[in-house]
Amino acid sequence: MASPNYAARGYKDIKVYLDGAVAVVTLNRAKQRNTYVHSLVVEIVDVFDLLDRDDRVRVVVFTAEHTAPAYCSGADISSSWDTLFGKEEDKEGPHVLVCPAAHRDSGGIVTMAIFRCRKITIAAVNGHAVGIGVTGLQLPFDFRFVWAGAKLALPFVRRGIAAEATSGYLLPRLIGHAKATALLLTGGTFMPDSPYLQGLYHQVLPTREEVFPAALAFAKELAANTSQTAVAVTKALLWRGGDTIEAHHLIDSRAISELARARDGNEGTRAFMERRAANFQDTLGENMGNWMPWWSEIETKYRRAKL
Amino acid sequence: MASPNYAARGYKDIKVYLDGAVAVVTLNRAKQRNTYVHSLVVEIVDVFDLLDRDDRVRVVVFTAEHTAPAYCSGADISSSWDTLFGKEEDKEGPHVLVCPAAHRDSGGIVTMAIFRCRKITIAAVNGHAVGIGVTGLQLPFDFRFVWAGAKLALPFVRRGIAAEATSGYLLPRLIGHAKATALLLTGGTFMPDSPYLQGLYHQVLPTREEVFPAALAFAKELAANTSQTAVAVTKALLWRGGDTIEAHHLIDSRAISELARARDGNEGTRAFMERRAANFQDTLGENMGNWMPWWSEIETKYRRAKL
Amino acid sequence: MASPNYAARGYKDIKVYLDGAVAVVTLNRAKQRNTYVHSLVVEIVDVFDLLDRDDRVRVVVFTAEHTAPAYCSGADISSSWDTLFGKEEDKEGPHVLVCPAAHRDSGGIVTMAIFRCRKITIAAVNGHAVGIGVTGLQLPFDFRFVWAGAKLALPFVRRGIAAEATSGYLLPRLIGHAKATALLLTGGTFMPDSPYLQGLYHQVLPTREEVFPAALAFAKELAANTSQTAVAVTKALLWRGGDTIEAHHLIDSRAISELARARDGNEGTRAFMERRAANFQDTLGENMGNWMPWWSEIETKYRRAKL
Repeated sequence: MASPNYAARGYKDIKVYLDGAVAVVTLNRAKQRNTYVHSLVVEIVDVFDLLDRDDRVRVVVFTAEHTAPAYCSGADISSSWDTLFGKEEDKEGPHVLVCPAAHRDSGGIVTMAIFRCRKITIAAVNGHAVGIGVTGLQLPFDFRFVWAGAKLALPFVRRGIAAEATSGYLLPRLIGHAKATALLLTGGTFMPDSPYLQGLYHQVLPTREEVFPAALAFAKELAANTSQTAVAVTKALLWRGGDTIEAHHLIDSRAISELARARDGNEGTRAFMERRAANFQDTLGENMGNWMPWWSEIETKYRRAKL
Repeated sequence: MASPNYAARGYKDIKVYLDGAVAVVTLNRAKQRNTYVHSLVVEIVDVFDLLDRDDRVRVVVFTAEHTAPAYCSGADISSSWDTLFGKEEDKEGPHVLVCPAAHRDSGGIVTMAIFRCRKITIAAVNGHAVGIGVTGLQLPFDFRFVWAGAKLALPFVRRGIAAEATSGYLLPRLIGHAKATALLLTGGTFMPDSPYLQGLYHQVLPTREEVFPAALAFAKELAANTSQTAVAVTKALLWRGGDTIEAHHLIDSRAISELARARDGNEGTRAFMERRAANFQDTLGENMGNWMPWWSEIETKYRRAKL
Repeated sequence: MASPNYAARGYKDIKVYLDGAVAVVTLNRAKQRNTYVHSLVVEIVDVFDLLDRDDRVRVVVFTAEHTAPAYCSGADISSSWDTLFGKEEDKEGPHVLVCPAAHRDSGGIVTMAIFRCRKITIAAVNGHAVGIGVTGLQLPFDFRFVWAGAKLALPFVRRGIAAEATSGYLLPRLIGHAKATALLLTGGTFMPDSPYLQGLYHQVLPTREEVFPAALAFAKELAANTSQTAVAVTKALLWRGGDTIEAHHLIDSRAISELARARDGNEGTRAFMERRAANFQDTLGENMGNWMPWWSEIETKYRRAKL
């Protein structure tokens, strides 16, 4: 993909810059306590779609200003939950079961935009987080770095709503149903050293200031030493693999076969034999075969009944 | 549902009472070491079906007398395993594969009755537990409180039988296959501080006396501050969600859409804005839309081949 | 099955002996740092197929010499990844999606041979391990014993390839996606006390010498006191159970029904009542009903397009 010009996108709720092969996305709503609003949803979806296809980018770090009141203080429900529902979709009303209604949870839309990004993604949680600030802005990332003093609130059942942003899908898979239930069904507020969060965070930092630099250093090391195509395929094998070991074997056999013979696979072997750092050059835009994706996806966009 | 009269059910193996919105079910077979017998199965299935539909109930605590010899000392196999098989179903014999035989594991029947209860469920394990006392009477609950001194035995493979009561389904999902295998394939006896149990218990209490009060206090706090409908939907999202993130997104979008606009969703927002405790009034019996359940269930009851 | 003569199989890359009902398989390539080569694949697949069907065997311990340079130092890629691809399959080329190509990852073939073994399997990891030495030669086992000083490297994304040997299937299920991602997407090297490995190892031993004896003692105790049929069914219930709790209930109901009335089930009850050790005699070859397996498996062997 031609290199997108992030500055020209006119983002207001986020700031974006590239530091070599690492993209940094920073929440830019400190004055509003980094609340989650519709305009932020639009910008996050836009930027993660670009980052996914920008061949220069190998790792994405998402963070907030460490001096902000919070990493993300949740949805702005200053009037009511209605602020999260579009007028347009309301006209359509609920439809059939399963794919039932015009409404699409914006938390899930954000979550899936991050989840589908084929680069390594890291959330640098350098402040308190509430609701969507814990679910959508943390769970779909590959890694989570967090401030030891962060208050992490999942108050859904105490607000009369359910676990949103596909957290009911991601959390049990990330850390198991026992801990996921403890987090979501109590509606509680947790600190990173909580046993119910055990395993969720990759690294816990003592101060807010240290979180982003630690995540960035981690990101740069990975950006320098990993293959973009190998990363994308490994992420997909973890989340889009087979339902049985046999089905998975057929998929990863193809993946290994393709990657091992590609330029990055050969470079990986040569570098290892020559005891030097590998110089990976394959990109998703230029060198990813059409065997990816191997899975089919349900279309989640709502189609209006009438033109 | 009209409020059931638990006293009128004539339970003998359990005692049941309501403490506000918290229902307490206590095993009443201390003289028989709280062994698991057919009459107990019938009463547990009956009471959890009622508790599921009793709109007064928000949380269920299941426990034993802390002075009993055990929380549950397993199935009474004083004669043989045959005590667990009905004469009637034996006549039918095994049938086709998958849904294969007249026999339905009573441990699974109990487990599913608890698992399907849409209220918050808590097991207060204030004594030793063996077999079904660990599987059926602990795994299907949302939370497990346990005495630090409890001996928890899973001896199936040392008794010539396999992991029963759907423990082969629940345990890997609750804490992962590595730990589930360690528990079920060794047939061992474990204490709550065992690394193989890590994550399974919500809280560990030093004495038997403390287990039930801790569970009850936890239950009352949740009963006072959570929405009955939000709890039921969150439980279902955790266990009956989509197979892919996209499928899950369609489901939880509908859930959020319905709940946020319902009375409890509005009350949750208002209470938050007014910095007061929420007063949730929606009930499963009166206010749950017909979009729940969104999943289909295999019928597990056995139908006789002949009338 | 007639008792196979392991000595007559002419293995060169492994050594095999029976110690009562425990089979010990030892890597025999210490001079080559226990690298993984095609001939080793062939022998491991052959021996695990035999061990699966050898009724004398109840537990399998897989290990290396503790004086070897490594437990397994990974694939021998001294020339290139091409050493892992057969000439024959290359002629066929890639085919349709999903079941797409002639190539079958040899790491997956080894993994599945171990995974399908219906006996208790234990990896005694008494040295460093790299790549397939961590995935294929550890993950499909029921239990992993490890030396505290072992360096465990999963460098795939740093070599330009993806997570192989069905590790993308096994690792998230064993310990959850959060830890599996940390292991596979960093391409890092980990020690057994790493939080990202938490739960994966059954026991950690301080010296290399202690790993195999600890695993062997564990194996002998299990071999003496568990039912071969109960073990096989429990393993299958953990990995081949139902997709929903209802589907699982139908399966384990049949399993309990069959096992409880079989000889081992009766012996388990009698021994318990008589407060003596059980003497289990049922074997997979003689006493396993045709209700096992209850699941269907995708055929993974490649069929040539032309004769």
